[in-house]
Amino acid sequence: MDLKKLRVNGQRLRNAMEEMAKIGATPRGGVQRLALSDEDKKARDLFVRWLEQINLECTTDEMGNIFGRRPGKNADLLPVMSGSHIDSQPRGGRFDGILGVMGALEALRTIHEHGVETERPIVIVDWTNEEGSRFAPAMVGSGVWAGKLDRDWVYGRTDVLGKRFGEELRRIGYQGKLPARRWPVHAYYEYHIEQGPILEKEGKTIGVPKGIVCLHWYDVYLEGTANQVGPTPMEGRNDALCAAAEMILNVNALPAKMGGNMVATVGEIQNEPNSRNIIPDRVHFTVDIRSWNDDLALRAWEDVKRDFEAIAKARGCLIRIEETWRVGHAPFDERLVKRVLDVAEALGFPSHPMVSGAGHDASYMSQIAPTAMIFVPSIGGRSHVEVENTNWDDCEAGANVLLHCLLRSALERAESV
Amino acid sequence: MDLKKLRVNGQRLRNAMEEMAKIGATPRGGVQRLALSDEDKKARDLFVRWLEQINLECTTDEMGNIFGRRPGKNADLLPVMSGSHIDSQPRGGRFDGILGVMGALEALRTIHEHGVETERPIVIVDWTNEEGSRFAPAMVGSGVWAGKLDRDWVYGRTDVLGKRFGEELRRIGYQGKLPARRWPVHAYYEYHIEQGPILEKEGKTIGVPKGIVCLHWYDVYLEGTANQVGPTPMEGRNDALCAAAEMILNVNALPAKMGGNMVATVGEIQNEPNSRNIIPDRVHFTVDIRSWNDDLALRAWEDVKRDFEAIAKARGCLIRIEETWRVGHAPFDERLVKRVLDVAEALGFPSHPMVSGAGHDASYMSQIAPTAMIFVPSIGGRSHVEVENTNWDDCEAGANVLLHCLLRSALERAESV
Repeated sequence: MDLKKLRVNGQRLRNAMEEMAKIGATPRGGVQRLALSDEDKKARDLFVRWLEQINLECTTDEMGNIFGRRPGKNADLLPVMSGSHIDSQPRGGRFDGILGVMGALEALRTIHEHGVETERPIVIVDWTNEEGSRFAPAMVGSGVWAGKLDRDWVYGRTDVLGKRFGEELRRIGYQGKLPARRWPVHAYYEYHIEQGPILEKEGKTIGVPKGIVCLHWYDVYLEGTANQVGPTPMEGRNDALCAAAEMILNVNALPAKMGGNMVATVGEIQNEPNSRNIIPDRVHFTVDIRSWNDDLALRAWEDVKRDFEAIAKARGCLIRIEETWRVGHAPFDERLVKRVLDVAEALGFPSHPMVSGAGHDASYMSQIAPTAMIFVPSIGGRSHVEVENTNWDDCEAGANVLLHCLLRSALERAESV
Repeated sequence: MDLKKLRVNGQRLRNAMEEMAKIGATPRGGVQRLALSDEDKKARDLFVRWLEQINLECTTDEMGNIFGRRPGKNADLLPVMSGSHIDSQPRGGRFDGILGVMGALEALRTIHEHGVETERPIVIVDWTNEEGSRFAPAMVGSGVWAGKLDRDWVYGRTDVLGKRFGEELRRIGYQGKLPARRWPVHAYYEYHIEQGPILEKEGKTIGVPKGIVCLHWYDVYLEGTANQVGPTPMEGRNDALCAAAEMILNVNALPAKMGGNMVATVGEIQNEPNSRNIIPDRVHFTVDIRSWNDDLALRAWEDVKRDFEAIAKARGCLIRIEETWRVGHAPFDERLVKRVLDVAEALGFPSHPMVSGAGHDASYMSQIAPTAMIFVPSIGGRSHVEVENTNWDDCEAGANVLLHCLLRSALERAESV
């Protein structure tokens, strides 16, 4: 057959997505399938059943990462790999993560159905705990597998109820015997929803990120003076919430001030004693800065940190800052990124070069193997919320792009071209 | 004896205060004696025992207000009354409320000890739940008694655990049979710590408020759009926390903008989903505006409300505002206020005319009887916190002023002078 004419079955992909969306379905149309929960286990069981139906060789490693391998003609050639994650945010959406797993499954079902023989093995993967919302941090399955995080440290991470990652992994029966240790990979593709508004705004079907922006996290702690609001004059107050309010606006204004592509956000705030008639004396808030340009992100932080210190001083508050987490930007493999663009063009889908503002398992994978991602539009740019949505036609388009990227890579005989 | 030379026993007052401070003592030197808690009951039991030791006639009404009555020579004359509250803020101080009850007790102990006969009865009172921190709103004991709040509505108020006021009142055994219904009062004095920095700053011992400022409470609810922070560009965000930050600063700047004596505070904020990598979409915060000038406070609110609406519009957020509670300013009785100033002068204590920025049971009392208050300095102006403190000499001075105000009023034969 003419492989160029091969297409996925859009209806079958949709059915698989809808079947998965029933597991952990929330009242307003989203899903809650937290890592290592009963819902995660149920979805994994279904996933493994589907892998076995198309004769994939299934293995689970000691991190709970699930692999399904389809042999190639030449067992000596490195495999091509694709996947994403089954877990979700609390009250999250039906597409984040799972589309990349079901998309790869649909590509493999199509290859299986048509008896296509590839030179290289193709491996589908579900990475454990990408979201990091039950057990922080995020992307630990791929992180340990890629040799960037320590397995036992991850096992010891706890959720808000004090349950340990390692115990929960055993409880749901997905702690495999296979070491979570990377093997050489010829190419890694991750298919995902965009989670932003750009593709919709540009009217494009396929987003092709050249990589993932850097991610810098900070925690700011302010200490002022609590007092009864009534008898305490405005002069001489040390109101920690007012200091935080000024700082929040400075963070918000930072991208415009610094120029370049950057986002800066305060997403979390705790205020104490948080009583309507007591002046706040303790405030904690977070800062999230992301940019393709690591250096710009650092300079932005130095700039805003100086502002923070001046504001704290002017408001008579003590300030303590933790530089919590820094991950450099992750550039993808230029050849694979170009391949995604080429395939989209060959299939007639308008595409858009961009960067990924969100972290993905592809971030760790890009450090050990040639990597690229395929994005499809998020309606209204909404993600990590129950209304997260993507048109079924776009889901099918992305799966076709993935199919042909996998085929091109799996048909390559040389390790580097 | 020469009544003018009568003085309270400062050491006995201190002992009583220290005994009370043991009940609900917190690790950092404060007390936690929430209304209708086991600690409240224990402190009430001790208070009643002390009332009985000086032969006061003890009664408890259906709101749990405790009265101790010392007869005068003429049973037809209206009584003079004094007291405050035994309950405290969570992790509150050792002086707020309890000093006014122990100060009145010390005055009555002194009168008892010297066998002083007054024309009028003198009544000491502990008002239930002045703080309102376990069961909102505040000052419900005096409010129901003064006919300004409905008893059954208060009975139905719940704490954070869902426990009802009425049931908790019965549980601690302080739901009396006596109706909580005001009787005519000749004069009401309430002795209290200042809870602000003015007396300390002015170097005065006795504060003499001409009344209590008005109190306006508002609740603001903002709704923006939640999204993954990374892939969502700055343009087009509807960040509810940024909108709130601008509003908080507007509230803080309001007193300087409006002129006149006023304080304006945001003490409480809730942010959702409160996750470091999600743009906040729901924020609730409170506004507290106080001024001696009710009209100025209203105009300030109208002004800042317009700003709020413009900010919400510019940030693409929906805004909903609740005008939660408005209590007009409570002017005290001019004759009694002058009496407090006169007594302080006669006793040789430097005094300072002022207003009360905090609400007190005296607020409701001033609506049904001639009322005045006596303030003593709060060290560092701190209150509603564990470090709340007042010098023992000042505590004694305030109790002596109270003693002589009570004597002057209780020796008056005519109802109005």
